[in-house]
Amino acid sequence: MIIIRNPERSEWAKIVERPHLDVSQLNDTVASVLADVKKRGDDAVKGYELKFDHVDLPTLAVSEEEMNEAEALVSADLKAAIQVAHYNIKTFHESQQFKGKKIETQPGVVCWQKSVAIQKVGLYIPGGTAPLFSTVLMLATPAKIAGCEEIVLCTPPGRDGKVNPAILVAARIAGVSKIFKAGGVQAIGAMAYGTQSVPKVYKIFGPGNQYVMAAKQQVSLHDVAIDMPAGPSEVCVIADKHANIEFVAADLLSQAEHGIDSQVFLITTSEQVILDVQAEVNRQLDLLPRKEMAAKALDNSRLVLVSSLQEAIDLSNAYAPEHLILQVKDYAKVANKVVNAGSVFLGEYACESAGDYASGTNHTLPTHGYATAYSGVNLDSYCRKITFQHLTEDGIRSIGRAVELMAEAEQLEAHANAMRVRMRTLNIKD
Amino acid sequence: MIIIRNPERSEWAKIVERPHLDVSQLNDTVASVLADVKKRGDDAVKGYELKFDHVDLPTLAVSEEEMNEAEALVSADLKAAIQVAHYNIKTFHESQQFKGKKIETQPGVVCWQKSVAIQKVGLYIPGGTAPLFSTVLMLATPAKIAGCEEIVLCTPPGRDGKVNPAILVAARIAGVSKIFKAGGVQAIGAMAYGTQSVPKVYKIFGPGNQYVMAAKQQVSLHDVAIDMPAGPSEVCVIADKHANIEFVAADLLSQAEHGIDSQVFLITTSEQVILDVQAEVNRQLDLLPRKEMAAKALDNSRLVLVSSLQEAIDLSNAYAPEHLILQVKDYAKVANKVVNAGSVFLGEYACESAGDYASGTNHTLPTHGYATAYSGVNLDSYCRKITFQHLTEDGIRSIGRAVELMAEAEQLEAHANAMRVRMRTLNIKD
Repeated sequence: MIIIRNPERSEWAKIVERPHLDVSQLNDTVASVLADVKKRGDDAVKGYELKFDHVDLPTLAVSEEEMNEAEALVSADLKAAIQVAHYNIKTFHESQQFKGKKIETQPGVVCWQKSVAIQKVGLYIPGGTAPLFSTVLMLATPAKIAGCEEIVLCTPPGRDGKVNPAILVAARIAGVSKIFKAGGVQAIGAMAYGTQSVPKVYKIFGPGNQYVMAAKQQVSLHDVAIDMPAGPSEVCVIADKHANIEFVAADLLSQAEHGIDSQVFLITTSEQVILDVQAEVNRQLDLLPRKEMAAKALDNSRLVLVSSLQEAIDLSNAYAPEHLILQVKDYAKVANKVVNAGSVFLGEYACESAGDYASGTNHTLPTHGYATAYSGVNLDSYCRKITFQHLTEDGIRSIGRAVELMAEAEQLEAHANAMRVRMRTLNIKD
Repeated sequence: MIIIRNPERSEWAKIVERPHLDVSQLNDTVASVLADVKKRGDDAVKGYELKFDHVDLPTLAVSEEEMNEAEALVSADLKAAIQVAHYNIKTFHESQQFKGKKIETQPGVVCWQKSVAIQKVGLYIPGGTAPLFSTVLMLATPAKIAGCEEIVLCTPPGRDGKVNPAILVAARIAGVSKIFKAGGVQAIGAMAYGTQSVPKVYKIFGPGNQYVMAAKQQVSLHDVAIDMPAGPSEVCVIADKHANIEFVAADLLSQAEHGIDSQVFLITTSEQVILDVQAEVNRQLDLLPRKEMAAKALDNSRLVLVSSLQEAIDLSNAYAPEHLILQVKDYAKVANKVVNAGSVFLGEYACESAGDYASGTNHTLPTHGYATAYSGVNLDSYCRKITFQHLTEDGIRSIGRAVELMAEAEQLEAHANAMRVRMRTLNIKD
């Protein structure tokens, strides 16, 4: 762990710097797979599944039979836990529903917004040893609440040609309409362009490796929207002298176990916290199965001593962390000063894993400093706000002349004329 | 104008197809200008201003003196019109302010969203013969309402080194903080990376030519968010036999005058409307100063006869137009069925130019079918919704076990442990 004491503000840019993520060297490979999927559809997807996932799939769609089989394979305990998480995610995201107000901006001119679900969305769930069924809940639950008509999910199968049963159970609970066995670039291509079996969608959500990230970026240039750019996961903990050291250490480690590129950041006003956290992290690290990976991520972690909580939150805002944990006595006051962060955890009991799984907030969040400009996934991510306006004759009287003058000044004569013909019909002087 | 009568649904995909926009052949040029601006800052920007805009600028920033000079150059009438438009845009976008609700998803688990302004935003306003001061209002007004701390505007100067006065007047009214004389790729680079005089921003908004579009796409891959992908402007008018032919023709022409690649689309349930609109368009076209450009855009316009209003709105939803005008008697009923559109105009008096300038809705809207997945610019475009969660001891009792089980099933032991240490402190069985 790198310890930095009382850095000057001029050094902050360096301290909060993340490793440069450049996927451009993958672009050619990714482009050729995408082009092939666009051209050959299912055959191409199956070919890449054989090549990259080492599985020969007769069909891509997960069958009803496989869904039922999965139900039997997931323990009642885990199913109950998934139900609790789903209930909380559903409750919080339902509260985000938008009701537009009609606004009369001038007499006879009424404007409003209406939130309308994106008709078709695609969710990508990565494979690997651990099944990310929690991400299924996070991406599909708000899609269902929004009212998306088609919720497509792609995830790579194991070598046995099966999808992990917990993923299928979570998908059914959350309301996914169609599940396909496809991973990596070929899955992104299938959802962006559509194939014989995979429907084309309008927006793609979900995490993935560098290839998936590059593929999402490429298709986002022309064909489909994406949730947000992606980078390694990260946490920033702000702790004062009242912080529970055992909890702080456990939270830092829960971030470190994600991977060797995970970002772990502690900002504290107490020298003692730095010393105690170091010792406690080392003690807890020894007990972890993924301790080698976590230890590597910790090598690059930063423990920063600052002189005040104001300075702590300023530094955190400069970092713009994906997750921000406030282990400080007066967390409400500090929370009010958060400007850049994805999701914020208040008080000693609000561990990041609460939000990762079951508090109800979404865990798909902006990393790599993107929290300066992007929100995490929320109900809005699955909707568009379409604007409407209605004008009466009075409306033409209210704004007709202004529109005409501005259009003339922009040398858009036909724009002016579209208003003028209406003004003349109403005998309004133009 | 291309007339299509009663097409089969299977032909719709062809009818709504837009020309493929591929800016990839510009990518190398754009990348080299961006890299140079990143490296050399102001000097590079000034160099490209000399090269592309033929103007030798001593400084990029517009001075207070130039701002005051501009005030004197804009007529009182136009200034009053800009004030009316600004008032309406402000009124409508202020009504979009978000108030988050605190939701207790389980006893002791409280979650909420808070809308926080993006700290620094950049607005691009293209140059050319006509000054797009209306776009200044559309982009800067909501930025100011959102509370963005820094609102930077770049626009290319004329050969005299001056920015059009109407742009400066609109910028002052709308609350822009800093204005710079820079256009094209160099302006996008300056705002994405920051230079000695231009602040780095977190999100870039605004229209532009193919080079600007390619530059926005390139910087969006790593450095900064952008409002949305761009394409040629477009309108779809749905008209029934009650439609005012003069108004319909004027609305189609107001779109056609934007450029030869403008998309003009009429869907009607009446053969007579097609015949009458054709004649009226030709009559009005003759009176327009930009008639040659408009005539070219009209060559590719489509007038489609369908059998019912249901079919009309289905076809419009398949097209996903930027602007949708409902010149039908029962417009409220049709409006309820809109699924894909940027902004919708209801009734015979709601011309597109009302929304382009002064109704209060935003005119920065998704084109090229992107309305399937993107909203137009609105107050949300300048904010992030940060999530917060607070857990009490009861919260750990409510969800602790579910979090632990799910983390274990995802083989994230340190995640499970972060919850477990809290459960043990509270003597909850794990």
